[in-house]
Amino acid sequence: MAAAMSPMARDPKAIETAIASLAAKFGNRLVTSRAVREQHGNTVTWIENQPPDAVIYPQATEDVQEIVRICAANRVPIIPFGQGSSLEGHVNAPYGGVSIDFRDMNKVLAVHAEDLDCVIQPGITRKALNEYLRDQGVFFPIDPGADASLGGMAATRCSGTNAVRYGTMKDNVLALKVVTPSGELMQTARRAKKSSAGYDLTRLMVGSEGTLGVITELTLKLSGIPEAISGGTCPFPSVDACCNAAIMTIQTGIPVARIELLDALQVRAVNLYSKLALAETPMLFLEFHGTPAGVAEQSERFAEIAAEFGGGPFQWTTQPEDRTKLWEARHNAAFSTFTLRPGAKMIATDVCVPISRLAECVAETQRDIEATKLIAPIVGHVGDGNFHLTLLIDTADPAEVVAAKAFNERLVERALAMDGTCTGEHGVGQGKMKYLLAEHGLPALEAMRAIKRALDPDNIMNPGKVLLPG
Amino acid sequence: MAAAMSPMARDPKAIETAIASLAAKFGNRLVTSRAVREQHGNTVTWIENQPPDAVIYPQATEDVQEIVRICAANRVPIIPFGQGSSLEGHVNAPYGGVSIDFRDMNKVLAVHAEDLDCVIQPGITRKALNEYLRDQGVFFPIDPGADASLGGMAATRCSGTNAVRYGTMKDNVLALKVVTPSGELMQTARRAKKSSAGYDLTRLMVGSEGTLGVITELTLKLSGIPEAISGGTCPFPSVDACCNAAIMTIQTGIPVARIELLDALQVRAVNLYSKLALAETPMLFLEFHGTPAGVAEQSERFAEIAAEFGGGPFQWTTQPEDRTKLWEARHNAAFSTFTLRPGAKMIATDVCVPISRLAECVAETQRDIEATKLIAPIVGHVGDGNFHLTLLIDTADPAEVVAAKAFNERLVERALAMDGTCTGEHGVGQGKMKYLLAEHGLPALEAMRAIKRALDPDNIMNPGKVLLPG
Repeated sequence: MAAAMSPMARDPKAIETAIASLAAKFGNRLVTSRAVREQHGNTVTWIENQPPDAVIYPQATEDVQEIVRICAANRVPIIPFGQGSSLEGHVNAPYGGVSIDFRDMNKVLAVHAEDLDCVIQPGITRKALNEYLRDQGVFFPIDPGADASLGGMAATRCSGTNAVRYGTMKDNVLALKVVTPSGELMQTARRAKKSSAGYDLTRLMVGSEGTLGVITELTLKLSGIPEAISGGTCPFPSVDACCNAAIMTIQTGIPVARIELLDALQVRAVNLYSKLALAETPMLFLEFHGTPAGVAEQSERFAEIAAEFGGGPFQWTTQPEDRTKLWEARHNAAFSTFTLRPGAKMIATDVCVPISRLAECVAETQRDIEATKLIAPIVGHVGDGNFHLTLLIDTADPAEVVAAKAFNERLVERALAMDGTCTGEHGVGQGKMKYLLAEHGLPALEAMRAIKRALDPDNIMNPGKVLLPG
Repeated sequence: MAAAMSPMARDPKAIETAIASLAAKFGNRLVTSRAVREQHGNTVTWIENQPPDAVIYPQATEDVQEIVRICAANRVPIIPFGQGSSLEGHVNAPYGGVSIDFRDMNKVLAVHAEDLDCVIQPGITRKALNEYLRDQGVFFPIDPGADASLGGMAATRCSGTNAVRYGTMKDNVLALKVVTPSGELMQTARRAKKSSAGYDLTRLMVGSEGTLGVITELTLKLSGIPEAISGGTCPFPSVDACCNAAIMTIQTGIPVARIELLDALQVRAVNLYSKLALAETPMLFLEFHGTPAGVAEQSERFAEIAAEFGGGPFQWTTQPEDRTKLWEARHNAAFSTFTLRPGAKMIATDVCVPISRLAECVAETQRDIEATKLIAPIVGHVGDGNFHLTLLIDTADPAEVVAAKAFNERLVERALAMDGTCTGEHGVGQGKMKYLLAEHGLPALEAMRAIKRALDPDNIMNPGKVLLPG
């Protein structure tokens, strides 16, 4: 067996041979210009840009199989690429290789409205998919901040604001087609809503970040567009009060669709960027899905809970325009933070803790921000215990970068000490590899490494991501 | 690497050595009497009893580690055992070895009501767990027919009548402690509600049927006990009408908690066994969870849908006694079938198809039953497309056994042809191994085998289950 997890040496000769073969087969769908290659290295993080040696644009699963076979024959790394919106260096090419860009594989192949599922190619984005689905009365609920590709969303096991009600990608992918490291086509499951037939390859691939194979087709679970939606904002005297109201809402069994925390600084950024006039105090953004009577009842019950914790008034509406404006503001929350420090680099953090520890974790983190003198507003998927800080960094100031990185380390350690995870939804990529041992312990990490070696013995699938060499 | 998936030869000398070591360590918690060993071979199926060489009763995770280390040193098979209620030969010992019975590891270790989770040992049964949880306002929703152990339920990725609303075991296990084949203790995840930190070992272990390690602790997601529950029965003119009403109910977004199909013959058995007087026609049993106003609204909306398909009246109630009686009757459905043919052996089938194909699959299956002259009532978790026939067989009549087995083969082929699965919730065990190639195709099956070899190179973990030798 190859020493799979040991660092790969970049092999210029092998790469040259593979690129020549790919060019012969794919012509101008293979691109090696510096600009395009650099666009395909990750820049949405503080990890340096590590461009691939070439970028290729397949049009069908068979193309991907051919690409993988050529790369495998030359032991050349393969890096799947969707929209490039991942946050931990997932699409960088630390050992060179070929970036497979799914731009041209963005079709909806089938919608089975009766079964509440659809079959798609990996390059389609979440907004384009929902645009396509809208007139059939169904939607796909997972909504990360970026308009990411569905292939990338599956690869990182992402989620978003709807996860408290609809789950994450692991709950909404029914089956995958995956090109294996030897170029074979694997179907991980069938279209039945549930199965006990063998190991759960679907869930193994979801979140494996392209390190076990290349996703070329997804069967997704859909949800019916709710008959009625109500939503609104509710100010609170403290982050603690926000968290406690969220806990009680969920414990009471209110099937809240979205329950999002913004700290006072984040509200200020949202006001500045989205031209809103929200009270600049810790706040929950909420949404309820159901029947007209149901969403009214849920909204009223939540308002009562909020009042118990000193929050309110809960201003809610069922008007689509008002809700859309609000949630656009929420989705732009990370981007809006640049208003707080124009020109700064935005770095996203992503820990997740049991919800009972959330208030404490956020409070300690806020004290840490203050002590470190960072500018870092907070948004949280509070129903899941997951929160992000957007660190606004002057990357030209080495001392500030060092301080910010040390802050992020403390944040991860704090989350782990509270039985949490170093990443709730962004994934490991290059940025979080060093935390996996502390999070999972050696036996689990060794199991992951054994699986990686078993399925990708030559370590050609997105090497240098997820698992540090053992 | 050991030729892991090749059939193991039973090695009497190694087994003798291991048993002597185990006896020295565990005294009378190791039992080798014939009666106890035979009780631990599977008898809830038509697969022959294959007793282990010994049964051992650990009291702690450390005991399990010690047992596994002794067995591993001697390459002796290990078969985890919960309640023995699995239906496909999961607990048989085709190559001998040691059955680990979790009878004494049945504690609730922690309940975190704020986080809606609990930590338990694998031997506790679903009824005992819910008894324990009741006064804390939370419950664990997964309800297979039997009062199974939670460890076994996780191992088979089981579900039950609530899955349409609450998901299956894959959706309700947050984390596991697993003793690996080398006796190390692996924690698959932390208590955070979601994570993107590496490969999803939790979901890999759920449904792996003891072939990758031994579960010794489970962290389960809990749900709040609904404020109000309504439930009832609704007769329909045909199975087809039942299925179409179920499809529309789910598409409309009614968050039905249970929607169960019984065919006319099954209703007759339920009437006989549970002393009910239901109309002996295809019928849906339903339950709705929510607020008092919410469940009333859901019930009324369902009644309208039922009427559209010629069904009704939908008789529903929120009275706990009436509901309990109804769902006890439903849970006893399989057992009640013996009234249709006293003395017969009951064999359970378990296919699952996309819901849009369910009516067609059931109708073809009913024609097949008629042609084969079998007695086989049907119950279905119709919201998931999953249905069971209880075949009532005179096992002393070889021709009938042959006919029944051939019928089951056709049933599986029919489900696979409709993009379904050979098992929706019972698992593979010994009985369904031969269907996995047709269901998954060779690349997926080879990936499963590679994972098995990587994690259990000596094939000591429940050998002869799930994966046929390659």
